[in-house]
Amino acid sequence: MKIFAGVDIGGTTTKVGALGDEFDSVSFATPRNKDALTESIVEALKKLGRGRKFAGVGVGCPGAVDLGGKVDNMPNLGIEDLDIGERLRSALNVPVAVTNDANVAALGESKRWDLSDLVMLTLGTGVGGGIVIGGKIYEGHNGKAAELGHMIIEAGGRKCACGMNGCLEAYASASALIASTVRAMERHADSLMWELCPNIDAVDGKVAFEAEKLGDKAAREVTEEYINYLGIGILNICNIFRPEAIIIGGGISEQGENLLARVRRFCLKFDYGYKNAPRPQILKAKLGPLAGLYGAIEMIKYKVEDNNERP
Amino acid sequence: MKIFAGVDIGGTTTKVGALGDEFDSVSFATPRNKDALTESIVEALKKLGRGRKFAGVGVGCPGAVDLGGKVDNMPNLGIEDLDIGERLRSALNVPVAVTNDANVAALGESKRWDLSDLVMLTLGTGVGGGIVIGGKIYEGHNGKAAELGHMIIEAGGRKCACGMNGCLEAYASASALIASTVRAMERHADSLMWELCPNIDAVDGKVAFEAEKLGDKAAREVTEEYINYLGIGILNICNIFRPEAIIIGGGISEQGENLLARVRRFCLKFDYGYKNAPRPQILKAKLGPLAGLYGAIEMIKYKVEDNNERP
Repeated sequence: MKIFAGVDIGGTTTKVGALGDEFDSVSFATPRNKDALTESIVEALKKLGRGRKFAGVGVGCPGAVDLGGKVDNMPNLGIEDLDIGERLRSALNVPVAVTNDANVAALGESKRWDLSDLVMLTLGTGVGGGIVIGGKIYEGHNGKAAELGHMIIEAGGRKCACGMNGCLEAYASASALIASTVRAMERHADSLMWELCPNIDAVDGKVAFEAEKLGDKAAREVTEEYINYLGIGILNICNIFRPEAIIIGGGISEQGENLLARVRRFCLKFDYGYKNAPRPQILKAKLGPLAGLYGAIEMIKYKVEDNNERP
Repeated sequence: MKIFAGVDIGGTTTKVGALGDEFDSVSFATPRNKDALTESIVEALKKLGRGRKFAGVGVGCPGAVDLGGKVDNMPNLGIEDLDIGERLRSALNVPVAVTNDANVAALGESKRWDLSDLVMLTLGTGVGGGIVIGGKIYEGHNGKAAELGHMIIEAGGRKCACGMNGCLEAYASASALIASTVRAMERHADSLMWELCPNIDAVDGKVAFEAEKLGDKAAREVTEEYINYLGIGILNICNIFRPEAIIIGGGISEQGENLLARVRRFCLKFDYGYKNAPRPQILKAKLGPLAGLYGAIEMIKYKVEDNNERP
């Protein structure tokens, strides 16, 4: 029985898992420097391996990764230029594949849904993107593809954390929704949003959606604007990829049908596919925080298999 | 020797070619109705076949096509719901594959450049898009993908011919450039653009670029705006696909380096890939009007081969 391992390096927590006859996993607070991070991953893998050799290790990490497994920058960890692929290969002497965390999450969801062609958007602090084609992650010619959050949807628009203007992330991330909510609260002292969240510094991505349900007009304007921009991003993905499904994950996806049904209506109205266009399903992610770890294991499984098939 | 045939249905001219030991082709004015169009293609193929049976026929056409070869709408021909795949299969009894004209052009260029991962934009009346991944056309889960011209780059922006607002096509097509040029001429009676083109109804995509070379400020504003919007579209493709190259074709690409060098500078300035991002080359299409026919033949070649390999 081959045993494959996965690693999901998160901004707060890192999860490490091994899948053979059974599934076993551990997690720990992500260390904030290169050596400690590498060592804690190696240690966790060795513990899970219990003396057995892994057939391969798949890694998802919060940054742009090249095909060799080198991460330029993980801004949330303050770590730059980490060749995590090479470090794990020399420590463990097994095949290692590394990619962006949104990519492994997308692959995890594609296995969970049994859909081979999908695009996933993660609506969290940023907007992550993952593309799965034919059951495999689309990584670009040498990695770093699928930065769907940095697709510009409004030329000269809102400043994005990346330095560009008008990126989807500046409109559709949880951070963007929170900023819009705060602005609306500042403009509307009588809004019910104040009753739900008297402390403006504690506003989260739920306040506007909850207040809207109580009939608050200012909150409704915030969610409508949010959904229109998110809708444009999803519509673009639809017209570019025509996948089987577009999967929405991350904190904001917890709004469920209240969000998704409205996004579907938006896309149906503007879809560029003529009358018979195959419309991708727009679905809520199923796996939650385990998607990345699950996807990392699935990635190394097919990569090792593909490699064995090569003449 | 297997002989493969290609068909490139154009808004004005249809080209039909056959490639075996040698390459032979014919072209004719595209008939404006379903039966005449089908018959003229079948007739041309039979003539080129000289009694030999084709191993397969690849077709590119100016519309959105599903994987079975059904075209919903070819607006420039006034033809709807043409199942050209099925019609050619029954007339010829050979494998037939049909896709969008921009897709076959992209595949043609990918073979010409010997690049397996590229995205092509065609800047003509509209903006066509073609995606080649691993040497094959990316068609989406059931066709109709790669509508890159209908990627929204300015929410609520210019009205596009497709009915949406803010599509790349509304800014980066030759038609959009001509409309901007006309508007600038109307505002600037002293512009050199009037000397180059005294008849405002005869303005083409070259006027602004030519007047700018003579130092005309109004023309420079037109081309700068055009390049900024085209740059956003190309930047988005870069961040989404990270292909080996982005190939620019269509009438406007004739500006060559005057256009491409400026687009490259724009992308370099805003590229979201951190310092070590693999930057796609931005190149001018090489094949010109033959790209589609060449690509149609290459498409049916790999499709027949893939099909033969299936167990």
